Amino acid sequence: MEHEDRQLTQTTLLDRIAAPADLRKLDESQLPQVCAEIRQSIINGLSDNPGHFGSSMGAVDIIVAMHYVFNTPFDRIVYDVGHQAYAHKLLTGRREAFVTQRTLGGISGFPAPSESCYDTFTCGHAGNSISAALGMAIADLNTPGREEAHTVALIGDASMSNGLAFEGLNNAAINPNNLLIILNDNDMSISPNVGSLHRYLSELTTSGGYNRWRHRVYNAFRNKGLMDDRRRGRVLRFGNALKSLVSNQQNIFEGLDIRYFGPFNGNHVRKVVQVLNEIKDMKGPRILHLHTVKGYGYEPAMRNPSDWHAPGKFDPATGQRSQSTGGSAKWQDVFGRTLVDLADRHENVVGITAAMLSGTSVDMLQKTHPERVYDVGISEGHAVTFAGGLASQGKHPFVAVYSAFLQRAYDNIIHDVAIQRLPVTFCIDRAGLVGEDGVTHHGLFDLSYLSNIPGMPVAAPSEGWMLRTLMATAYAYDGPMAMRYPRGSCGEMPANSIDEPMTIGKGRVVAETEGADTAIVTIGPVLADARKAVEILAQRGIKTSLYDMIWVNPLDGELLRRIAERHKHIVTVEDGIRKGGFGSKVLEWLADRGIDIRVTRLGVPDEWIAHGTVKELRNICGFDTDAIVAAVAGQASDCRK
Amino acid sequence: MEHEDRQLTQTTLLDRIAAPADLRKLDESQLPQVCAEIRQSIINGLSDNPGHFGSSMGAVDIIVAMHYVFNTPFDRIVYDVGHQAYAHKLLTGRREAFVTQRTLGGISGFPAPSESCYDTFTCGHAGNSISAALGMAIADLNTPGREEAHTVALIGDASMSNGLAFEGLNNAAINPNNLLIILNDNDMSISPNVGSLHRYLSELTTSGGYNRWRHRVYNAFRNKGLMDDRRRGRVLRFGNALKSLVSNQQNIFEGLDIRYFGPFNGNHVRKVVQVLNEIKDMKGPRILHLHTVKGYGYEPAMRNPSDWHAPGKFDPATGQRSQSTGGSAKWQDVFGRTLVDLADRHENVVGITAAMLSGTSVDMLQKTHPERVYDVGISEGHAVTFAGGLASQGKHPFVAVYSAFLQRAYDNIIHDVAIQRLPVTFCIDRAGLVGEDGVTHHGLFDLSYLSNIPGMPVAAPSEGWMLRTLMATAYAYDGPMAMRYPRGSCGEMPANSIDEPMTIGKGRVVAETEGADTAIVTIGPVLADARKAVEILAQRGIKTSLYDMIWVNPLDGELLRRIAERHKHIVTVEDGIRKGGFGSKVLEWLADRGIDIRVTRLGVPDEWIAHGTVKELRNICGFDTDAIVAAVAGQASDCRK
Repeated sequence: MEHEDRQLTQTTLLDRIAAPADLRKLDESQLPQVCAEIRQSIINGLSDNPGHFGSSMGAVDIIVAMHYVFNTPFDRIVYDVGHQAYAHKLLTGRREAFVTQRTLGGISGFPAPSESCYDTFTCGHAGNSISAALGMAIADLNTPGREEAHTVALIGDASMSNGLAFEGLNNAAINPNNLLIILNDNDMSISPNVGSLHRYLSELTTSGGYNRWRHRVYNAFRNKGLMDDRRRGRVLRFGNALKSLVSNQQNIFEGLDIRYFGPFNGNHVRKVVQVLNEIKDMKGPRILHLHTVKGYGYEPAMRNPSDWHAPGKFDPATGQRSQSTGGSAKWQDVFGRTLVDLADRHENVVGITAAMLSGTSVDMLQKTHPERVYDVGISEGHAVTFAGGLASQGKHPFVAVYSAFLQRAYDNIIHDVAIQRLPVTFCIDRAGLVGEDGVTHHGLFDLSYLSNIPGMPVAAPSEGWMLRTLMATAYAYDGPMAMRYPRGSCGEMPANSIDEPMTIGKGRVVAETEGADTAIVTIGPVLADARKAVEILAQRGIKTSLYDMIWVNPLDGELLRRIAERHKHIVTVEDGIRKGGFGSKVLEWLADRGIDIRVTRLGVPDEWIAHGTVKELRNICGFDTDAIVAAVAGQASDCRK
Repeated sequence: MEHEDRQLTQTTLLDRIAAPADLRKLDESQLPQVCAEIRQSIINGLSDNPGHFGSSMGAVDIIVAMHYVFNTPFDRIVYDVGHQAYAHKLLTGRREAFVTQRTLGGISGFPAPSESCYDTFTCGHAGNSISAALGMAIADLNTPGREEAHTVALIGDASMSNGLAFEGLNNAAINPNNLLIILNDNDMSISPNVGSLHRYLSELTTSGGYNRWRHRVYNAFRNKGLMDDRRRGRVLRFGNALKSLVSNQQNIFEGLDIRYFGPFNGNHVRKVVQVLNEIKDMKGPRILHLHTVKGYGYEPAMRNPSDWHAPGKFDPATGQRSQSTGGSAKWQDVFGRTLVDLADRHENVVGITAAMLSGTSVDMLQKTHPERVYDVGISEGHAVTFAGGLASQGKHPFVAVYSAFLQRAYDNIIHDVAIQRLPVTFCIDRAGLVGEDGVTHHGLFDLSYLSNIPGMPVAAPSEGWMLRTLMATAYAYDGPMAMRYPRGSCGEMPANSIDEPMTIGKGRVVAETEGADTAIVTIGPVLADARKAVEILAQRGIKTSLYDMIWVNPLDGELLRRIAERHKHIVTVEDGIRKGGFGSKVLEWLADRGIDIRVTRLGVPDEWIAHGTVKELRNICGFDTDAIVAAVAGQASDCRK
């Protein structure tokens, strides 16, 4: 290793870096020390204020090298996903704010243009960096004063397998531009990587000696003035073809007319600086393949990269991670366990995930029925269309995707599943406000955009047992169905039978109170907050009824009619965007039948919601217990006037 | 040419083919004749009942060969886009129904599983065939009795450049399966192709002699028993590497671990049959690269493939195409002309299209400012993210995409544009019911899924001049904006000034009638139908007011309040899905303010809408003039009770 895992107590160099320009004043020989100090800052910071650890540690050297070689912010770095960018934050004036990352009012856990001029584009959803950076690079070409600016996209190998990244690559070479793509290849997404591209990159690595030799030879020629840029391109291409012969493989990037360099060790900062200097002024799109190690510089993380992707709090000295509270089951685990139970019983049940085996708990099925699990990598669109293909031949796929990422498969759901009424079940995790991951990761739109698709029931379980029952209901249903549930715990792991499906579109009475003016009508786990609100209201002498609709589509018309007949006011509560969401569907139902009753809709307002704890954000959005109480009590007093 | 362009008057062979099994009884030598008869049927059928001509003619030989070699429907063919599949329809029992294609109650212009067991998956949106076919192929592996079934995806070169197709390719080799991908390379999407992959395929073609030689050599070896399947794979791969050296290029497909064969002449049916027979029983995923000519077999179409993509009616003998009605401007041309006008005035205006240069009229900008047009191929996601990158550096991109295809970029709009409030204008063509192209092509969801995105104004012009003004408004606005307009004509080409932007979120009074009980509130060109309805109602003595809201987001609250104060009943009219659409947003606005008025929402109901003329479909959906009259009159009489 180039730099040791010292327990630095001082950050003597980092203290002098208020902005990347200060970094560029340092001697190259000091860069390993800068990297070590950044790593120590990340270890210390994240041990107490959890975040994305492994990828951030692995990317330190590349980020330092980029800011050292390129003239940021005039030159632009576009991150991909961006949870690896802590080093970038520490170098760009956010050292003090670093302790606030991912907290309410603090800095984001991802690069965010609203936060810093060094953050050039929104990060969070994989694979967008090449397209965005290509736009910037092309814009520069005819922007006076910016013709010589550099644009660099830093993309992980997992993101590279996304279709959007491919579309970007496919377009990178058709217009003149000088885009530099750095492939940060750590051989991992959150789960170990899949796909031919992944295997392909591994093979490129194992035959990397040849590439590096070629690179050295050509640099030697260039240094002697024997190699101009154009000649070099031709020779490199010939070299790749020669390599194909030697190694029995093809270079995909060169096939797409993008010059390829690598692989090099991306955890050797001076080497990265050297290569960047060599290729930075070449014309035309280029890709630099760097190999890094997730968690680099911290032994516990290097040994177990999956667990250390986002480890939570830990002891920096020992690597001991704080125990989770225990005893309480996560929603995703209820999904995972039920999937196993259904698979045990039904041969045609299969599970599909897009690079989130553990994040969605599909890994539980992988342990028991590995041959029925398909991890397709970060390819949400393919995940859904592939599920459609399986379903058309009698399989029943359960597709587990995070709500925010399922937005990428909207058309696939419509076109490849719903139009054909294929039996694919969408189990949508991380729905609603997700908290610390912030604006790009909240799953707010699903109820709205899914419930406008004809013929696809959409549900949200309010309690863990109900997720089990809904999944059993979906299995029994000959068509597509979607259900969404949040991040976090749902109490005890339920063990109710999966033999008794529910009636689709049937809600339930939770508490119907004679003489109540207001009915609270909820969807999903916000029911718990509503229960508390009913208690508080009762203590104040305000009678309230409570209903759990379970289904956004179809709505339970019989129940809604009953509610409208017995009350003067309906308060709907949902953990999602109010526009077009659950409450909106209630309005539609009532209006279409000419039923006249006052409706107050609580949920996420029509604005972008930043990061903070879920509790804080629900309060801000106005659909926590207090807000429900206020909505009912306010109206109740109105009614008494 | 293998078969002549005879003007066949008889279809002696085709008459004997009620199903593909009948085709398989013919001698191979008869297949060219079958192809000629099919071509003649397509020419005759489409000359009178318009459809997709060029691609259908080009694909005849491949389709005949597939049904001849494979045991359909036990073996499965998955088409991509599917507008090339007329030969498939003619071979699978739909010859008589062919005259009804694309008409109300008739057969679809695309393969449709609801129509025939030979149609295996929904077609219409490019790039889904590999993912869907992969699902089928993998499902077969453990479905008793289907282990030996073949699955074939037929995909065009333009579709291949779509990110979804890449995600499919990237996953094709990671599970055991015997998927065969046939690449129908006609060097065209609707517009000429773009992208590195396209250039790459052209180069593969020019160096095809080597491939074909290699193929012959290996077949000779195999026929002598010297080459088993496994050895063959290894040798092929070595051969590709050798070819890379010779031709100075790389094989992308082999890089993704998919065996590559080709290119061969895909308009030579017996050659295609021969190759398919040779590779059909090989194990593992394979790709067969076939070269075809758009419009093959019909000279006028071969000379001018872009115009003959969907030529409308024509004279089969002369190739003379029926003149369009003339004098009347299309919506897309108003967009195209206004884009030119804006680009003339503002240096930072650029136009982006996803393989629809002429379909969206972005080609008008290409004629005047070619350096400011980006046709990114069938890559809607990239189109939007790339626009975000350009906008982040001061450009103002106008992204023109068909409504149904923009569904594929939903997440890109949210994540890569709207969160950052970047000035990208979405000009959404083919919005609402599109008519003959049917269920996959209707643009029904846009108002619903776009208007739930915070901070992005969404409008629909009711008249041509308004589209111009809206585009000028979007240019002047520092943030994202969307506007949607339908296929077809908007009357005279408007020439109003683009110097006077509108106020965002401001609707207008069209006719406010004292004493009217009902207000009709419209969005978009359905205003014209509403005008007629008002006249008819007036003739019946029913006074009605009429308002054009123009904006779905934000709604004009002042106007809505005024409407609600003056009337007892609001009838909203929109050419889009009612769920979550314009009328629903009106309900939300009223409910949030406690304004109590009866609202009737007219629009597309919660079901899948098939093909037919726009007029027929609007009638069926219940938002044409008659429906508006009925909604107003019905309520008016109710009110008098």
